[in-house]
Amino acid sequence: MKTCLACLEKAYKELAERRAVNRPRTDLYIPSPESPDVYVFKSMEAGLLDSRMVALRLNSDIIRWREREGKTVKEKIPAARGKWVGLILLFSTQNGEPLAIFPDGVVQRMRVAASSALAARYLARGGAQTLGILGSGWQAGAHVPAMCAVRKIAEVYVYSPTQANREDFAQQMERKLGVRTRPVARPEDAAYPADILVAATNSLSRVILPEWLKPGIHVTCVKDSELGETTIRKADRVIIHSRKFLPENYILGFGDEKIEAQDPINLLRSEDKSAPAAVKPPFWLAEPELKDLLTDKVSGRRSEEEVTCFINNVGLGIQFAALGSAVYKEATSKGIGREIPTDWFLESVHP
Amino acid sequence: MKTCLACLEKAYKELAERRAVNRPRTDLYIPSPESPDVYVFKSMEAGLLDSRMVALRLNSDIIRWREREGKTVKEKIPAARGKWVGLILLFSTQNGEPLAIFPDGVVQRMRVAASSALAARYLARGGAQTLGILGSGWQAGAHVPAMCAVRKIAEVYVYSPTQANREDFAQQMERKLGVRTRPVARPEDAAYPADILVAATNSLSRVILPEWLKPGIHVTCVKDSELGETTIRKADRVIIHSRKFLPENYILGFGDEKIEAQDPINLLRSEDKSAPAAVKPPFWLAEPELKDLLTDKVSGRRSEEEVTCFINNVGLGIQFAALGSAVYKEATSKGIGREIPTDWFLESVHP
Repeated sequence: MKTCLACLEKAYKELAERRAVNRPRTDLYIPSPESPDVYVFKSMEAGLLDSRMVALRLNSDIIRWREREGKTVKEKIPAARGKWVGLILLFSTQNGEPLAIFPDGVVQRMRVAASSALAARYLARGGAQTLGILGSGWQAGAHVPAMCAVRKIAEVYVYSPTQANREDFAQQMERKLGVRTRPVARPEDAAYPADILVAATNSLSRVILPEWLKPGIHVTCVKDSELGETTIRKADRVIIHSRKFLPENYILGFGDEKIEAQDPINLLRSEDKSAPAAVKPPFWLAEPELKDLLTDKVSGRRSEEEVTCFINNVGLGIQFAALGSAVYKEATSKGIGREIPTDWFLESVHP
Repeated sequence: MKTCLACLEKAYKELAERRAVNRPRTDLYIPSPESPDVYVFKSMEAGLLDSRMVALRLNSDIIRWREREGKTVKEKIPAARGKWVGLILLFSTQNGEPLAIFPDGVVQRMRVAASSALAARYLARGGAQTLGILGSGWQAGAHVPAMCAVRKIAEVYVYSPTQANREDFAQQMERKLGVRTRPVARPEDAAYPADILVAATNSLSRVILPEWLKPGIHVTCVKDSELGETTIRKADRVIIHSRKFLPENYILGFGDEKIEAQDPINLLRSEDKSAPAAVKPPFWLAEPELKDLLTDKVSGRRSEEEVTCFINNVGLGIQFAALGSAVYKEATSKGIGREIPTDWFLESVHP
C-alpha cells in the first residue's frame, strides 16, 4: 500500500504537469441473445513519460443486474471457467515492445483505495482515528489498509447487510492490520462515530445519508451514486477524481454513436433503440480534481469543522500505468511470473 | 482474400443492421525525450453479436516523420528488436474469456485492401480490366489481389518513385496472380490507362491529380490526403469508409482533453501546448458510408461514365473483429498457433 500511494501520487502529479497522458475509459455493450446478462468490454490507457511505459487496462465482463433490498446492484459474473477476465498490458515507449500482461484484480482495488486514501491524506482531519466502512466486499477490504496508511486509525466500524460478511470482514481486518474492527448491524452505527466514512459497495443508489455528515467528517465513495446529490451538497468541500464523469459507451443496437448514459442498463432493457437525450452533467463537475489537490492548486482541509468529500468517480488509465509499472519492476526484480517469449508478440511485417 | 471479402461484407452488413458495435480508434502520443521520434499507442475495438466475439486491435509504434521529395511521409520504425508491435486480441462474449492474441500486420493490410475492393465491387465498371497502382509497399501489395478478386483484371500498371521497388513489385504480382503487371516511371502512366486507380502510399499529400479522372474511372486511396480536395470534388459520386473522420488523439504535453488534429506532427513540433482550434470537418463527411453501399441504402455505379471514388479513411475495429474471427476459426481448425493456458489470463479475484 505504501508503494501504491507513492507511485500513484507521483503519477497524478505527472498528469498535472502534463508529463503523463490518459485515454478515457470506453465501454462496449453487447446484450446476450439468450439471457438478460450483458457482455461489457471496457478499456482505458495511459502513458508516463518518465517511466517510459504505457498501460492498457481491459475488462471482458459478463454483467448481471439484480434487485436487492429495493436497490439495483450490478454483479460481474465469473463466467470464464468460474473466473473473471481483467488484464493489464504494459508496453515500452522506448522501443514499443510488450513488457508484461497480468490480471488486473489486485491492482484494480489497490488503485481505487489508494486514490481515496490520497484524497483523505489532504482532506481528513489530522487527528482522524475512527473509520466507518459501508460494505464488506473486495473494495472495502482495500480501503481499510489504505486509510490506515494515511491516518492513525484506532478503530474501524463496518456495516454490511449480511451478518456473516461483516463479521468475517471485521475479523480479517483485525488480523491483518491489528486495528480494532467492529461489525455493526445498522449503517448509522458505522457512520456516527466515524471521522472518515467510506462507502465501498456495489449499490447504484444512495448509501450515505446527509444527516450522517457531522462537522469535521471526511466522506468518500467508490461511485457517486453511493452519496447522491443531497449528501454531496451537504459537504463544505468536494474533490472529484476525474472531470470526465461518464465512460464513453458504445452499445450494440444503438448504432455507431457514443451513447451518454450513467449506467446503460435502462437503455438495454428498453425497446427504444434511438440515442437517449444527453445526460445532464452532475452538479459537482466543476469541483477540483484529485490531481489539483495533490499539486496544491487547491488547498486541503481548511478547518477542524469542515465537512469534506471525495468523489472517487470514473477510473483513470493513469492509475494502472502507475501501479502496473510498480508491479512490473517488483516482479522482474524478484523473478516472479512466467516468461512468454517477446518474439511471439512482435511482427516482421509492417502493421 | 475471398474469405476476407466475405466476412468483411457480412460484418459491414451487421454494423448497418446494428448487430455489431464499434469503438472508434484512439491514439495516445508520447514524444521521445531524446529524439524527434514519437511513441504512439493506438487502439480500437468491435464486437459481433452473431460471432459472439470482441476484437481489440492495438499498435505500439515508434513513428518518424521525414521529408521525401518535398512531401512529408510517416514511417513506423521497427524498433522492437527490429520488428513492429501490433496485436489483435479476441475475447468470447459468451463467457468473457480470452481466445487468441496474434500480430495484426497481415490482417491489417488484408482488411484495408478488402474494404477498398468491396467498394470497387459496387462502384467500378463491371467491365473494368485495367488497374493502376500508385505505391509498391505493403498496402499496395494487398490491393492488387483484392481488386483482382472483384473484377477480371487483365493488366496492372504500378508506379513507385524507386525503380527497383516498382520492378520487384511488378514481378511479384505477376508471379503471384498471373496478371501482367508493368512498372512505370511516371504516376500518370499508371493513371491514364486505369479503369480502377488505387493510391496506396504513405504520403500525407496528394498523389492522384484531378486531371487523371477520366469518365468511368473508379479511384480509391488508403488516406484521403492522397486524393486531396480538388480530386475528390471531380468525382461524380463519393463513398467514405467511416463518418468518424479523425482518430481521437490524446497527446502528452496537451493536458487531459481529446485533441483534434488530422496528423499531430505539427502540434508535436510546436512550442504552443494549448489545444488547437477544432479541425474543420472535411467537405466529404456527409457522403454515404461503405456500409450503406453494401446494404443498398445507396446505389452502386449508375452509369458507364460516372467517376466514382471511395475514400478509405480511418479504420474500424469491426474490420479486425471480422477478419480476426476468421483467422481464429481457421487457425483452431488447422491446429496452427501456440497454446498459452487460458488460466494465465483469468483471475479468481474480482476485477
